[in-house]
Amino acid sequence: MTRLLIDISTSLDGYVAGPDPTMEDPLGQGGERLHEWAFAANSWQASHGREGGEAGPDADVIQELLDATGAVIMGRNMYSGGDGPWEDDPNPRGWWGDEPPFRAPVFVLTHHAREPLEMEGGTTFTFVTDGPEAALEQARAAAGGKDVHVAGGAEAAQQYLRAGLADSLQLHVAPVLLGGGRRLLDALGDSPPALEVDRVVASPAVTHVRYRVGT
Amino acid sequence: MTRLLIDISTSLDGYVAGPDPTMEDPLGQGGERLHEWAFAANSWQASHGREGGEAGPDADVIQELLDATGAVIMGRNMYSGGDGPWEDDPNPRGWWGDEPPFRAPVFVLTHHAREPLEMEGGTTFTFVTDGPEAALEQARAAAGGKDVHVAGGAEAAQQYLRAGLADSLQLHVAPVLLGGGRRLLDALGDSPPALEVDRVVASPAVTHVRYRVGT
Repeated sequence: MTRLLIDISTSLDGYVAGPDPTMEDPLGQGGERLHEWAFAANSWQASHGREGGEAGPDADVIQELLDATGAVIMGRNMYSGGDGPWEDDPNPRGWWGDEPPFRAPVFVLTHHAREPLEMEGGTTFTFVTDGPEAALEQARAAAGGKDVHVAGGAEAAQQYLRAGLADSLQLHVAPVLLGGGRRLLDALGDSPPALEVDRVVASPAVTHVRYRVGT
Repeated sequence: MTRLLIDISTSLDGYVAGPDPTMEDPLGQGGERLHEWAFAANSWQASHGREGGEAGPDADVIQELLDATGAVIMGRNMYSGGDGPWEDDPNPRGWWGDEPPFRAPVFVLTHHAREPLEMEGGTTFTFVTDGPEAALEQARAAAGGKDVHVAGGAEAAQQYLRAGLADSLQLHVAPVLLGGGRRLLDALGDSPPALEVDRVVASPAVTHVRYRVGT
């Protein structure tokens, strides 16, 4: 059965991006530090078409997610850093070059309609303007029985948590204090979802904590 | 060598107490849920002079802290929930009855001078008005070579983190979203401390993550 997994790297103080993101520094000040554990993993490097990186628990966690994922959902801000009409977006093809690492259908939440964009290596970006539930429906249909992975950013994840649509939340908690930026577990309303610890994987670089999400 | 350990239970969204604390509900709305893992542990029950509770990794983590601790530091708010002059404090002997579970010298950070208070079972509360560094100095002297444990609340922990005085930070992360209250890892300034993952212990009830704290 297709499940909805929210899977995001975060700082210990709860930020998924640092303050003051720019086109040159899309993750905000210090935001790259949240992902150093992934950059060091061979499975992450391979998903980006590169060699190198290390095996180990962190690489295994990434590979597990890649294997489980049939479709990806992300917010417009994660996709391009832009907002408003696409003709004004400085980064309309996304951050990941011609061959993005998703290698799966990706559904981008946006208020601005646009034709789908087919990239190399199996990634297609589809732009969904009728809300997170519609995006989930399309992603489920495209996932071929595998899971749907909500990759970010904070607002997209919050929409699925508020709507009670998430089955699983995995946080990769980096030993980093950012002190500002975008908080993930915020704005969840008066009845935040119930969580149960599902699995913890630890390494010197990061703590992977996965929760079952109830309502 | 005496080290300074900050050891606190927190929600997954980073709160060490819930919103709207009152005398009846000193941990704020939902705040008790942060400590359910401890209430269930036999070592916690024993430290409170009771029988029962379960053995297991959570109990071991508590016993480890009890064994390592030679003195405790806490903020006034954690001690009594009050502020201002002691004669107006509705809870001047603290939350823990006649035999508090610390069984060690406890140093309370306050702006209001007061004679030390000797309780049953080995706990003495000493009220320190000249700041966190002075409290640490007194606690070190009283710890008999064991460690000094900063038990809370958020503001007390932040003072030691900002001052670069903490050696270790252990968070007991409960699978709970409080949505408001007192955040622990906040207000740490422009140069928050550097952290390294030291040790992770996981159970179904809580994730214990310990960090080495640098500057």
